[in-house]
Amino acid sequence: MTISALGRRLGQAERLRIRAGEITGPTAGLAPGNVQANLAILPRELAEDFLRFCQANPKPCPLLAVSEPGAVTLPALCTDLDIRTDVPRYRVWKRGELVDEPTDITHVWRDDLVVFALGCSFSFEDALVEDGLDVRHISCRTNVPMFRTSVPTHPAGRFHGPLVVSMRPFTPADAIRAVQITSRFPSVHGAPVHLGLPEAIGIKDINKPDYGDPVPVKPGELPVFWACGVTPQSVIAEVRPEFCITHAPGAMLITDLRNSNFAV
Amino acid sequence: MTISALGRRLGQAERLRIRAGEITGPTAGLAPGNVQANLAILPRELAEDFLRFCQANPKPCPLLAVSEPGAVTLPALCTDLDIRTDVPRYRVWKRGELVDEPTDITHVWRDDLVVFALGCSFSFEDALVEDGLDVRHISCRTNVPMFRTSVPTHPAGRFHGPLVVSMRPFTPADAIRAVQITSRFPSVHGAPVHLGLPEAIGIKDINKPDYGDPVPVKPGELPVFWACGVTPQSVIAEVRPEFCITHAPGAMLITDLRNSNFAV
Repeated sequence: MTISALGRRLGQAERLRIRAGEITGPTAGLAPGNVQANLAILPRELAEDFLRFCQANPKPCPLLAVSEPGAVTLPALCTDLDIRTDVPRYRVWKRGELVDEPTDITHVWRDDLVVFALGCSFSFEDALVEDGLDVRHISCRTNVPMFRTSVPTHPAGRFHGPLVVSMRPFTPADAIRAVQITSRFPSVHGAPVHLGLPEAIGIKDINKPDYGDPVPVKPGELPVFWACGVTPQSVIAEVRPEFCITHAPGAMLITDLRNSNFAV
Repeated sequence: MTISALGRRLGQAERLRIRAGEITGPTAGLAPGNVQANLAILPRELAEDFLRFCQANPKPCPLLAVSEPGAVTLPALCTDLDIRTDVPRYRVWKRGELVDEPTDITHVWRDDLVVFALGCSFSFEDALVEDGLDVRHISCRTNVPMFRTSVPTHPAGRFHGPLVVSMRPFTPADAIRAVQITSRFPSVHGAPVHLGLPEAIGIKDINKPDYGDPVPVKPGELPVFWACGVTPQSVIAEVRPEFCITHAPGAMLITDLRNSNFAV
């Protein structure tokens, strides 16, 4: 997958505004059509386990790129990236506690840090909306509802924990279309993992998500569940690493790749 | 789509046995991997309407080939076909009444007859079984359950009537896989038209099919519905043409095409 001139132009323009401090919040709608990524930055001694965890759980943890230890670039994703300044807002964690939400992590950077960029559902939601489907949390202007399930992930080293899923309600015909569309994006969560029957994956109340906001499931609709990028965040939180950095919710890494690059 | 040597060898061998009168019943399992087709033979004066009906309703009526009026061959599907002798058993209808079930229609052939070959779900069921899914009516050794729905087809000329669907129950994860697999076969019914919520398409009792046999839907499973090749048969029956011929149920036209030819 190579970076196109269009992708580079759109991605780099927004990252330069972010680097300059002009954008410090959510990235939804920026660089339309470019891939946005979840970020996890871990000390090298945990990174190997986490890499194996992602490899074993590609649906919740679709790995787009991993840096060399200490490197601040991800050449496969972004031109002239400095990962310490080019994300609008970060979260710095110590032993599982949130200690800071800076717009720049230069002052806490360490040479043993490894950067993980993971695909996010923005890529396939773009394609669903383009097809004319009503993506409920987008039309409601809220966060997607997310649920911890009774489905275990495949453990790797110190990382283990339940699969977290996001939920989008659709009529049966639109659910079938959504399976078809998102199957084309295997590297950004791909096809749903479940539909209908929420109790079968341990969800007791579809109106009480564990993360995000509830959305109405109308009569004649089925809840459709996708593996969610909150899964890696929740397994990292469980391990309570002595130090790690993530993006702040909604403030993603804008890459130079196009969503359409991921469609198979 | 061209006929391969393998497809021709398998298809022609079985058609010659059928022509010789050695096979007079169901064709399931014959020429494994070859496409089998539903057959409708109509007088020319109805054929134009029926062709438009198929064109307007490609999911229940996936048209594989149409003959020239009076021709007994379908060169796109079969080598050296004589449609009057090469299907194991036919049904001859007059004004909507079944009048005969011969193994040969040479004696009733007319020069104004047009032959329609329509795709059948055998093609995608092969792919579901290959993937390891439990196709319930196959494991139960019964006929697939079929239901008249409240969903209208698109009318064309004299042809109109409700969509008929076939039902196969799956767990949610297998239902998602079944959507993916059957989406690869758009010319043989393709993706499901509905899943879960049978009442939404006018099905009152999932255990009482209108055609075929009931199959158990187990706890934790969803009924998944595909457009069914019985739809064209039921709209033809409604019109009660003065004369027409179909295959007898299960006794299909064996073609020289391979199911895998239809996978996109």
